[in-house]
Amino acid sequence: MADTLPDAFRQLRTLVTEDGKLKLSLDKVAMPTPGEGDIVIRVEATPINPSDLGLLVGAADLSTLKNEGSKDDPKLVANISGAGMRAMQARVGQSLGVGNEGAGTVVAAGSSDAAQALMGKKVTGLGGEFYGEYRMLNVAQVMELPEDASARDGASCFVNPLTALSFPETMRMEGHKALIHTAAASNLGQMLNKICIADGVDLVNIVRKPEQEKILRDIGAKHIVNSSSDTFMEDLIAAIAETKATLAFDAVGGGPLAGQLLTAMEAAANMGAEYSRYGSADPKHVYIYGRLDLSPTMIPPGVGMAWSAGGYLLTYFLQKIGSEGREKLRKRVMDELKTTFASHYTDEISLADALDPETLKRYDAKKTGEKFLINPTL
Amino acid sequence: MADTLPDAFRQLRTLVTEDGKLKLSLDKVAMPTPGEGDIVIRVEATPINPSDLGLLVGAADLSTLKNEGSKDDPKLVANISGAGMRAMQARVGQSLGVGNEGAGTVVAAGSSDAAQALMGKKVTGLGGEFYGEYRMLNVAQVMELPEDASARDGASCFVNPLTALSFPETMRMEGHKALIHTAAASNLGQMLNKICIADGVDLVNIVRKPEQEKILRDIGAKHIVNSSSDTFMEDLIAAIAETKATLAFDAVGGGPLAGQLLTAMEAAANMGAEYSRYGSADPKHVYIYGRLDLSPTMIPPGVGMAWSAGGYLLTYFLQKIGSEGREKLRKRVMDELKTTFASHYTDEISLADALDPETLKRYDAKKTGEKFLINPTL
Repeated sequence: MADTLPDAFRQLRTLVTEDGKLKLSLDKVAMPTPGEGDIVIRVEATPINPSDLGLLVGAADLSTLKNEGSKDDPKLVANISGAGMRAMQARVGQSLGVGNEGAGTVVAAGSSDAAQALMGKKVTGLGGEFYGEYRMLNVAQVMELPEDASARDGASCFVNPLTALSFPETMRMEGHKALIHTAAASNLGQMLNKICIADGVDLVNIVRKPEQEKILRDIGAKHIVNSSSDTFMEDLIAAIAETKATLAFDAVGGGPLAGQLLTAMEAAANMGAEYSRYGSADPKHVYIYGRLDLSPTMIPPGVGMAWSAGGYLLTYFLQKIGSEGREKLRKRVMDELKTTFASHYTDEISLADALDPETLKRYDAKKTGEKFLINPTL
Repeated sequence: MADTLPDAFRQLRTLVTEDGKLKLSLDKVAMPTPGEGDIVIRVEATPINPSDLGLLVGAADLSTLKNEGSKDDPKLVANISGAGMRAMQARVGQSLGVGNEGAGTVVAAGSSDAAQALMGKKVTGLGGEFYGEYRMLNVAQVMELPEDASARDGASCFVNPLTALSFPETMRMEGHKALIHTAAASNLGQMLNKICIADGVDLVNIVRKPEQEKILRDIGAKHIVNSSSDTFMEDLIAAIAETKATLAFDAVGGGPLAGQLLTAMEAAANMGAEYSRYGSADPKHVYIYGRLDLSPTMIPPGVGMAWSAGGYLLTYFLQKIGSEGREKLRKRVMDELKTTFASHYTDEISLADALDPETLKRYDAKKTGEKFLINPTL
């Protein structure tokens, strides 16, 4: 069946040039020949996650974005500031593919039984470079989708579902009793609520807007705190005191929020406790897994001594739990694909649309809550 | 011999009142009767460490400090701001003793052999409330000083020596290869250099002034970086690249320094490495063990994903290493009391002097590098 495939296909590429430009284009790349354990997927659905945007546009100034090509063959160019160039120094001159995950139909397969068994099947995969018409991966990087699932249903099976599952797993592994989550009404946040309700884990949700509170209440969330409220700190301390949450996952990263979480955990831990000048000895941690706010993370004094904060990357977690742990989580994602792990998309767009300057500015607008799906067959 | 002791003695106390005042005084407290395993020390030397100051004056506004008593019977009063009161809420109304550690002569002992064996001996102890004429402790909290050591020699055997020893121990326990230390010319920093030179551990010292560089060069320090220099970040990255240091101990706490340490570790780790959008995967950590700067700790993006920062308390470390580990470290302190662990003091003052407003402002001036010793027998 491999001989019916084209010799080359279109793939979205991102490049930072030495003279301070970001260049985005749809390049023709050669169709690879699958090795023994490889399959080629015709990509039919691939989501745009914040982590994809980091690679796609990085620190470029999107207000300067221009299309120097055509609508069907876009060649976008944007300026990058000096600070942006320093942050992206390591990728200068390297044309990079984008797109962490996606789903589609297997149209070519290597000689191994495992690869051959997937021919013609719908699969979902993780491995980068999904923003293209085809993607070759090893069978270990994909999962077969259930019969009744479309590529759209299966496009986001890895990043958000596994990240959401990893939060309560990390909580248990590191000896905490309950969780705090920021940007809590996101697709990931909604999944996390469903997981925590099913598993009996107390979760404090932090949102910014009343309508986000409603989304979470409708799912059944119990603890919701609005960071825009005048009573934010009191509400947060009360929710933490009730749940005994000492572990937070923060998608915002910059600004005062992470420090507020630690301050509130410390205040809740000291409620009714005897005075200790070093504060509570219970470990309190904030994992920063996103950077919706690119300003510095600020942690004030008043958080005691048993605090810590740090970066969080799904990859490190998946390495830590080993192949058996990974298999367990993947099975749960497949079993609950249309319930717990259902993703909602604002718009489904073509590869060329993904490089339309106005569309790109919309999906880069980090706080709109819009969520795009690319369908390269459009 | 206990019957020759006074019924009561003077002890320095600190109190935060509900109406927003800090009150410091020398109170008469009753002489305790030693239990089986206890000894009573006549305190002859007790240092003023930053951690003592935190308890002594906390968040009070020292520009408002007044003595409402007399020179010999001081009753100091200072105002506390609203934010200061919130930070000290948990200690309102509790009169507290001060002074983590100190040395002196055993003048009373309980009936146990271990306690009796110390009668008349010079000992050094850890346990709070050392700013007084006497201090009762359990024998487990003290160490007998060598014959040729004075109380002054043995006054600072715990906080700085054990903290300095704990840094390379922590480095080894947590799998790092070299260390970074800020405020590196302090007594603690000088001890740390001697330890690291003896043990073959690479140490990057961060100082603020050229004369501090000289102090460390004279000890034999190899890597010294001046944070006031225009080339600070380049110098820091170069020193980290050479030593492969991925663990820092920071006494400053607030402001940009902790973030600069992580940024430099990340930059050094990425030198010559292939581009990864998540940065280097080597864990990089900053322990904040002091708060010379009370502004928020600021951690910018650009530190990759494998970063973390957190509070550091000697007590937690000592619990972690168990009694055998503690014994090993204590023995080393005694063996190297006059070399590695020699402390330098700017001034030796009486208990009443410790509550002289002008003197107090001097030893609270955190950045002068002055180091005071209280001798309650003066």
